[in-house]
Amino acid sequence: MYSIRRNESEITADGSGTNFMQIAMIQDKIVPMQELMPVYLDRGTFFGDGVYEVVRSYNGKIFALEEHLQRFADSLAAIEITGVDIRKIHSRVLKAFETAGISNAKIYFHITRGSEPRSHVFKDDLEPNFFLTVVEIDNNSEAKSKGIAVSTHPDWRWKRCDVKSLNLLANVLARQDAVKKGCVEAILVDEAGLITEGAGSAFFAVIGQKLQTAPLTANILPSITRKYVLKAGANIGLEIVEKSLTPQQASSTDELFIAVTTKDIVPIVRFDDKTIADGKPGKYTLLLLEEFLSFTV
Amino acid sequence: MYSIRRNESEITADGSGTNFMQIAMIQDKIVPMQELMPVYLDRGTFFGDGVYEVVRSYNGKIFALEEHLQRFADSLAAIEITGVDIRKIHSRVLKAFETAGISNAKIYFHITRGSEPRSHVFKDDLEPNFFLTVVEIDNNSEAKSKGIAVSTHPDWRWKRCDVKSLNLLANVLARQDAVKKGCVEAILVDEAGLITEGAGSAFFAVIGQKLQTAPLTANILPSITRKYVLKAGANIGLEIVEKSLTPQQASSTDELFIAVTTKDIVPIVRFDDKTIADGKPGKYTLLLLEEFLSFTV
Repeated sequence: MYSIRRNESEITADGSGTNFMQIAMIQDKIVPMQELMPVYLDRGTFFGDGVYEVVRSYNGKIFALEEHLQRFADSLAAIEITGVDIRKIHSRVLKAFETAGISNAKIYFHITRGSEPRSHVFKDDLEPNFFLTVVEIDNNSEAKSKGIAVSTHPDWRWKRCDVKSLNLLANVLARQDAVKKGCVEAILVDEAGLITEGAGSAFFAVIGQKLQTAPLTANILPSITRKYVLKAGANIGLEIVEKSLTPQQASSTDELFIAVTTKDIVPIVRFDDKTIADGKPGKYTLLLLEEFLSFTV
Repeated sequence: MYSIRRNESEITADGSGTNFMQIAMIQDKIVPMQELMPVYLDRGTFFGDGVYEVVRSYNGKIFALEEHLQRFADSLAAIEITGVDIRKIHSRVLKAFETAGISNAKIYFHITRGSEPRSHVFKDDLEPNFFLTVVEIDNNSEAKSKGIAVSTHPDWRWKRCDVKSLNLLANVLARQDAVKKGCVEAILVDEAGLITEGAGSAFFAVIGQKLQTAPLTANILPSITRKYVLKAGANIGLEIVEKSLTPQQASSTDELFIAVTTKDIVPIVRFDDKTIADGKPGKYTLLLLEEFLSFTV
């Protein structure tokens, strides 16, 4: 049950507390505010005031957990959620993963600033809310072997996409638009006409012997998978080019793919209505995938 | 308790359901996914996938409820949340308002797309989640009589601020920055160097006999209060100019104010570190407030 500090003191101070009732309503049910569970007053819901991470395991081994935790700490710092012990988060992730007993698991976790009656301005002493799920990772083998279709969508996201925040409505709407068009992912295009990244993935092109992706700016998530893809590219002898592409450039490259924690590398064979090269996953893409998977063992 | 349809069928299909457990974790507590309350799987928290409204009452009478409900319907349509009966929302608002018995009430309500295991792509048949609170409105008389200080902040919001969505982290961070600077509101400035609006309010200037505010675009909330302020301006003989201001222009105007449902009109007397005119609420601002309040009776 939730104690509403500010309003309790107001009620005591002016003595008018008995004249009215602060209430909440959930669907059709009225609940006195004092009896409301804190989860209903989560700033995560009111404002998207929180940050998240997704890690996965390969055959019982979580990949790049330390790097995800470091990025989580960076995201928390960027939005000034303080007092979170990252070692404790580390322990919780391991405990949940072990309890679930899922060999190839997707582990999602978020922290929101806490629960309180809705107010933009936040109190310093709120207790952050931690939430985590462990589920089996989706089978992705058909997408990997056949490649996927993607479609472009304007990048409507906020200007701090370097922070992995819960403000994801632009991503949801772009992804849904892609699905309506029979595609798997939306590729976001900014106001300058440049591709930033996928709605839920990093975006790469192979042009000759070059592996190209957008540079890290305030509008690009510093993707852990991206980092390992670039490492894989260097390992197999590709030149790394961090430069944004236009949709026109992208649709006429030799190979395209997306990269994301839960799916690692997935070849793109259609971009909007254009077939990429011969419509099959590219040879460097498959080499990159092989090299990437060697990191996960 | 929550039934996870998709994964149940997967478990049945491949027969491996007994080998592992899908779990959630809330703070340090592990909960089997099947026992999780739906509120923990609210897309409002995962993605900010919902829209909201705030209405207020003056002396027992809710102001402009129909217009807020129309905007709510528009926001729902914009993010494709379907199947919400606005008449039912109207009934819920009235029922909650009557139950609370608060004469000068702030009524907040939101609808999220619904609860399901986290996935960007959404199902069409989700049941939307409705949540509402009624609290007494904050006393705002000192701010009105003395005026407030505001500070500028880059407008980090997404590109569909015409939709009143739960993606409000940019607003929260801007407002918090203002409070740290001893100010009450943040005035947002876009990449072109133009003022869009306040973090939680519309922004107005009075220059001579002109009442100026930004035009309605995809980056401006179609504020109901803004509409009534412009009506009040016309009624008292001001010329209405819908044109964005730069911070430099704003700081050298005759009068500035913000307008928002919960506070109606609040004079601004400091803008960043500059005093506006003589540092007191402007005469037209006070006339506009008087005219505005006549609409609420």
